[in-house]
Amino acid sequence: MADHGKKVCLKDIAEKVGVSTALVSYVLNNKKEGRISKDVAEKIREAARLMNYRPNQIAKSLKTNRTDTIGMIVADISNPYFSSLARIIEDEADKRNYTVIIGSSDENPEKFAKLIETFTGRNVDGLLIAATAGTEDQLRQLQEQKVPFVLVDRYFPGLTSNYVGLDNYNASWKAVQHLAEKGRQRIGLITYESQLFHINERKRGFLEACKYFGISARRHMIRQVGIKSYSAEIIAATKELLSADPAPDALLFASNRIAEHAVKYINTLSLKVPDQLALVSFDETECLDLFYAPLTYLRQPLKEMGKEATRILLDGLDSSVRVTQVNMEAELVVRQSTGTT
Amino acid sequence: MADHGKKVCLKDIAEKVGVSTALVSYVLNNKKEGRISKDVAEKIREAARLMNYRPNQIAKSLKTNRTDTIGMIVADISNPYFSSLARIIEDEADKRNYTVIIGSSDENPEKFAKLIETFTGRNVDGLLIAATAGTEDQLRQLQEQKVPFVLVDRYFPGLTSNYVGLDNYNASWKAVQHLAEKGRQRIGLITYESQLFHINERKRGFLEACKYFGISARRHMIRQVGIKSYSAEIIAATKELLSADPAPDALLFASNRIAEHAVKYINTLSLKVPDQLALVSFDETECLDLFYAPLTYLRQPLKEMGKEATRILLDGLDSSVRVTQVNMEAELVVRQSTGTT
Repeated sequence: MADHGKKVCLKDIAEKVGVSTALVSYVLNNKKEGRISKDVAEKIREAARLMNYRPNQIAKSLKTNRTDTIGMIVADISNPYFSSLARIIEDEADKRNYTVIIGSSDENPEKFAKLIETFTGRNVDGLLIAATAGTEDQLRQLQEQKVPFVLVDRYFPGLTSNYVGLDNYNASWKAVQHLAEKGRQRIGLITYESQLFHINERKRGFLEACKYFGISARRHMIRQVGIKSYSAEIIAATKELLSADPAPDALLFASNRIAEHAVKYINTLSLKVPDQLALVSFDETECLDLFYAPLTYLRQPLKEMGKEATRILLDGLDSSVRVTQVNMEAELVVRQSTGTT
Repeated sequence: MADHGKKVCLKDIAEKVGVSTALVSYVLNNKKEGRISKDVAEKIREAARLMNYRPNQIAKSLKTNRTDTIGMIVADISNPYFSSLARIIEDEADKRNYTVIIGSSDENPEKFAKLIETFTGRNVDGLLIAATAGTEDQLRQLQEQKVPFVLVDRYFPGLTSNYVGLDNYNASWKAVQHLAEKGRQRIGLITYESQLFHINERKRGFLEACKYFGISARRHMIRQVGIKSYSAEIIAATKELLSADPAPDALLFASNRIAEHAVKYINTLSLKVPDQLALVSFDETECLDLFYAPLTYLRQPLKEMGKEATRILLDGLDSSVRVTQVNMEAELVVRQSTGTT
C-alpha cells in the first residue's frame, strides 16, 4: 500500500525498549516465550503497538515461502452459483487457517490472465479456478511453473490436473430418464453455445439419453444461446422451441440463468406447467421460488464440491505428484414442474 | 506459492543469452526499448519464456511501492447485495487497470481482522470496506497506518473517513410517506437487532416519519431479528406483528433477506396484498420476482455507489488529505404491493 509515514522496523522497537533486534524479532514472531521474561516481552509488544509496527508480510513470505492464502478465480462473482461456492470455500479454508481472496474473470481470457498474475505475483499458496474457455495454455503454464491448483466446475479434457466438478453427462441423463418415465415424448433443450467441456457434456448426455429412451429430441429440438446472453435471446429461443410443430412437451434448461428467463416468459403464457409442458433445470433458481409449479432441478452438491476442492488443494501443497479428479453426482430434486404422479 | 522447482532469476537468463543482468532487467521490466536492438530484446524475452521466468511481483512491489491492486471486504459474498456491488467495483477498477481481490468477514470482527492483515500484508494499494459491527478500532488503526480506504454501505459516526452509502434515514422516511399517502394507518417494521449505524438509521427514519405523518407506529410495532437470523426467526416476527390487535395494514422490511422470508410466509396466508396488507422493502429481492403482488422497494443506486467508492479510493491514493463522504438517495420503486391507485 502507498506508505505515507516512515515505516517502523524491528530495530526502532529494539532501540526504544533497549533490547536487541533479535529479541524483538523473537517476541513478535513467535508464540512461545519460554526463556524470555514476561515483563520484557510485554514491553516489546506494547512498544510495537504504540509505534504502530506493522509486520511486513511480504518480506516475511519471501523467507517462509508460505502465505497461508489461496486465490480463487470465478467466472462472475455476481452469479449465485459462484458466490455460494466461494462462500463455502472461504469457510472451509478458514477451518485450516487459510484466507481466500477472490476475483472474477468475466469469461474473458485476458482478465483471467491478469488475475492469475495478480494472485501468483502475490505468492498465494495455491489456486482454485473456474476457468474461462480458451485458457488451456495459461493453465498449462501454471503447471510448468509448479503453481498448485484445482479446477472447479470447468474441466479441460486435454489437461491432466486436479479437478472437482459435476458429472454433467450423467446429470442430463437423469433428467431425460425422469421425463421419459413421466411419459414425455418430445423434449427440448436450451443450452449455451460454448466450447466449455461441461456445457458440451450436458448436451451429449441429453442427446444420448433421448436416443436410449426412444425420445424424439433431435438436434432441431436444441437451441443454443450466448454464454453472456441477455434475457431477450433466451426468451426468443424459448419461443422458437415452443412454436415447433409438434411442440415439445418438456424442456430442459442447461443453467439457472437460462431457466430464470425462460420460466418468467412461460409464466406469462396460458400454457400450463406441468400438464402441457414439464420443466427441469440445472441448479436451483431462487428467483423462481414463487413460480406456481416449483421446478424440478438437478442439484449440484456445492458444499461437498467446495470442501473437496479445498482439501485437495491444501493437502497437495507439499507434494503435488498426485492428480485427483472428482466427478460428483447431481441429485434430481423432483418437484411440481414435472408432475406429481 | 510453494515453489517446487528451482526459481529462474534474471541472472540465469542473462547467462543463457550472454548479456548483462542489468540489460535483462531493463528489457523485462520496461516497455520502452529505445536504445536496445530489437533482436537482443527478442532473444531475452524468448529465453525468459522458455525458462519459465516468473517475475517476482512481491520483490518488485517492495521497490515500486505500488501493486495496482485493491482489496475489498464484504460481510458475506454470497449475499446478492454484496456480490453485485463487488462485481460493479471490479468492472470500475478494471477500467483503471486495477485488480480487485475480495474476501468475506462473515460479520465476525476476528475474520475481519484477518482479512485486513491479509490485504495490507500483501500491500494492496487501498481498501474498500463494508465493515462489521465492533471494528471501529481496527479502522482507526488503519488510519494511523495511513492505509487508504473507503467505507461502503456501513458508516461509523465516530470515524472521520471516506464513505459511500445510502441515506437510510431518508429512505425509511420515503417509504412511510408513500404508505401514509396510500391511506395506511398502522405500519409495522421488521429490522435487525444491531449496533450498525445504517440499520439504526432505518429505524430512526421510520419512527420519526410515522410521528410526522400521524401514523400509529410505536415501538410495539417494531420487531428486531438477529443479523444472521434464519428463516424461522423472521417468520416468527412476522406472525407476531400480524397477530397484533389491531393488526398492521402495512409492513416495512429493513432488508432483502427479511423481505424474502416474511413474504414467502405471507404468501401462504389467505391475507391479500395489497388490499389487507401493503408491503415495502429495502432492496430488490430476486427470489420474490414471481410474487403475485410485486414488491414496492427502496432501490439503492448500487452502480453509482460502486463507481463513486472506487473513484474516491483511486483518486485519493496519492494524497489522502481529503475525506469524502457521500450519502446517496434511495429511489422508491412503486409496484403492486402498495396498491396501484
